[in-house]
Amino acid sequence: MQNFTFQNPTRIIFGEGQIAALDAHVPPNARVLITCGGGSIKSNGVLAQVQAALGERAWHVFGGIEPNPTYETLMEAVALAREKNIDFLLAVGGGSVIDGTKFIAAAMKFDGEPWDILARQAPVRDAVPFGSVLTLPATGSEMNNGSVISYRAKGDKLFFTSDATYPLFSVLDPTTTYSLPPRQIANGVVDAFVHIVEQYLTYPVDAKVQDRFAEGLLITLTEVGPQALAEPHNYAVRANLMWTATLALNGLIGAGVPQDWATHMLGHEITALHGLDHAQTLAIVLPAMLSVRRESKRGKLLQYAERVWNITEGSEDERISAAITATRVFFERMSLGTRLRDYQIGGQSIGTLIAKLEEHGMTALGEHGDVTLDVSRQVYQFAV
Amino acid sequence: MQNFTFQNPTRIIFGEGQIAALDAHVPPNARVLITCGGGSIKSNGVLAQVQAALGERAWHVFGGIEPNPTYETLMEAVALAREKNIDFLLAVGGGSVIDGTKFIAAAMKFDGEPWDILARQAPVRDAVPFGSVLTLPATGSEMNNGSVISYRAKGDKLFFTSDATYPLFSVLDPTTTYSLPPRQIANGVVDAFVHIVEQYLTYPVDAKVQDRFAEGLLITLTEVGPQALAEPHNYAVRANLMWTATLALNGLIGAGVPQDWATHMLGHEITALHGLDHAQTLAIVLPAMLSVRRESKRGKLLQYAERVWNITEGSEDERISAAITATRVFFERMSLGTRLRDYQIGGQSIGTLIAKLEEHGMTALGEHGDVTLDVSRQVYQFAV
Repeated sequence: MQNFTFQNPTRIIFGEGQIAALDAHVPPNARVLITCGGGSIKSNGVLAQVQAALGERAWHVFGGIEPNPTYETLMEAVALAREKNIDFLLAVGGGSVIDGTKFIAAAMKFDGEPWDILARQAPVRDAVPFGSVLTLPATGSEMNNGSVISYRAKGDKLFFTSDATYPLFSVLDPTTTYSLPPRQIANGVVDAFVHIVEQYLTYPVDAKVQDRFAEGLLITLTEVGPQALAEPHNYAVRANLMWTATLALNGLIGAGVPQDWATHMLGHEITALHGLDHAQTLAIVLPAMLSVRRESKRGKLLQYAERVWNITEGSEDERISAAITATRVFFERMSLGTRLRDYQIGGQSIGTLIAKLEEHGMTALGEHGDVTLDVSRQVYQFAV
Repeated sequence: MQNFTFQNPTRIIFGEGQIAALDAHVPPNARVLITCGGGSIKSNGVLAQVQAALGERAWHVFGGIEPNPTYETLMEAVALAREKNIDFLLAVGGGSVIDGTKFIAAAMKFDGEPWDILARQAPVRDAVPFGSVLTLPATGSEMNNGSVISYRAKGDKLFFTSDATYPLFSVLDPTTTYSLPPRQIANGVVDAFVHIVEQYLTYPVDAKVQDRFAEGLLITLTEVGPQALAEPHNYAVRANLMWTATLALNGLIGAGVPQDWATHMLGHEITALHGLDHAQTLAIVLPAMLSVRRESKRGKLLQYAERVWNITEGSEDERISAAITATRVFFERMSLGTRLRDYQIGGQSIGTLIAKLEEHGMTALGEHGDVTLDVSRQVYQFAV
């Protein structure tokens, strides 16, 4: 096990009916800005529940935070929040809304140009306090301090973290997910799955607890993922999916172990170039990544085969191949294509993707830093 | 899954050499009281490492906190801390030292008679900030807000919790455990094992993640427990044991599931009457408790048999019996006796034990509240 520091102060308030608990967790005299995306929280009744729970508190709504939240939109929210003397933010939505709200919270307290928080990694020492009501299990943003923001005009998509941007609390009511489109559920399952894999499928460091927690989360996703598509109103299924996606990226399973994240980096370039959903890019890249790097991941691939997929027959190479195939089949069962061609993208894009990786400094990725541009090219080629 | 609230703000600083990190986590101008038990932290060098890390800060040492920390001793520490204008406490030791330090921290800020915190559950709204350097993996006190304190003169052993009594941080350096006597390691393994079982082995509520996390921790203990006795200087073994014991009782695996704790309550009376180690009483009571209550725990016992002990052959009743036997054998492999007679205690004690349970209001224990005094009597009888 590697040395680590772990701390996660976010309070999780989990279960059906818990939106009403906002009254106990939002400060009594708060002036609240509710941040959200499109109109789904209006049509499914979540916004009405939130507003009822806030009672007599003053609140305003800022809608329209996009799936890849942009600096341009979020700075409009900052202006509105300042105009209304907002002192508490309440994100109601999925990972994009929560990521965006982290940026709003940081930007409101930031001296200078807030884009520097992302572009120059300017330290965020303070932020407006905020909570969240999660409506889409996927990114884990509800219980971590990370945020990915895009600058539309510049074509940049960048990341920041800060100890000041953990949500104070997040309400996780699985019933809020009943009305999600199947594509968003499928994307969320695959996103959470790959988050876990990026922290697990590296090389062994004898971290038994982290490994077993990761395997437990992966197995749970293989069970509840297809069920969540087949039975949208099955509470137990949605509850297990929601808690799994949160625990997939709250820092716990990644504490004390190597991490990879190369699949995410290669996926980001596909989204930037072709506009695919984030999870679609992960479903394309991960099986290819595991295939190309099977030797350096050999020990953990064998463990993954046995413990997650119960593959115990055949030679080591056969078991590894079977595990990679099982991963691909699982993503396809979730209705995601796992090849570039499934999205009408051909090999002629690879040159541009590699150039973008180089431009973004992604030349030594992975747990060993040995995923060079050459290796990335092999991965993209394998994924055609 | 049941509704739940989960929050745990303690920072964990894990790994060899991390005691030096105290310098970054104890406030720079703190006036520190180091609290500890006997002299082991002097002889094994841990106290010297702590004092070196504190650098120029003013510090005093209060030693002599007992294995079952007493009100009488802890109030001496409160008096010393007030005399020395202490504003930060640093517990260096195992669960008893940390539990005791939680009480000192609360008592220093408490208006009135501090024993009321335990006897009347008077709310603790404030406490002196404190951290810990853990030297004995067992109780989980290093990452929770609970504390068990005894009043020697009254013969009481009582419990309190407060949001104000989470450690700010805990340093977990597995090498500090190398010099522990085998009996303390064995007790720690069994204590952690039973903590997990009390939150897991109840009835199914379709909490897949909590179940798999609990099972992962239990399996890890079955692996590292005997190894920890056989190879005291095996870093990976001690690291896995330490992190497992912390996660066994930090609130995570118990969030959203029923809990039992009857084994602990019956065990406490044996300690009070006969002076056995806490873990010895758990090793006696748990196998008997599972045997007596096998029908009401049937579903989870079958799951426990299969997933923790890999028992898949035979009828349901045979698998349950085999799992209970495997539990007993594991405790015995850790060198703990699992019958009252192993400690020269006969059936004639049972009447007194039952009277004490009644006196302490322990008449409806367990996840269903159906562990009456009659059931407890059967458990003690089974354990003879």
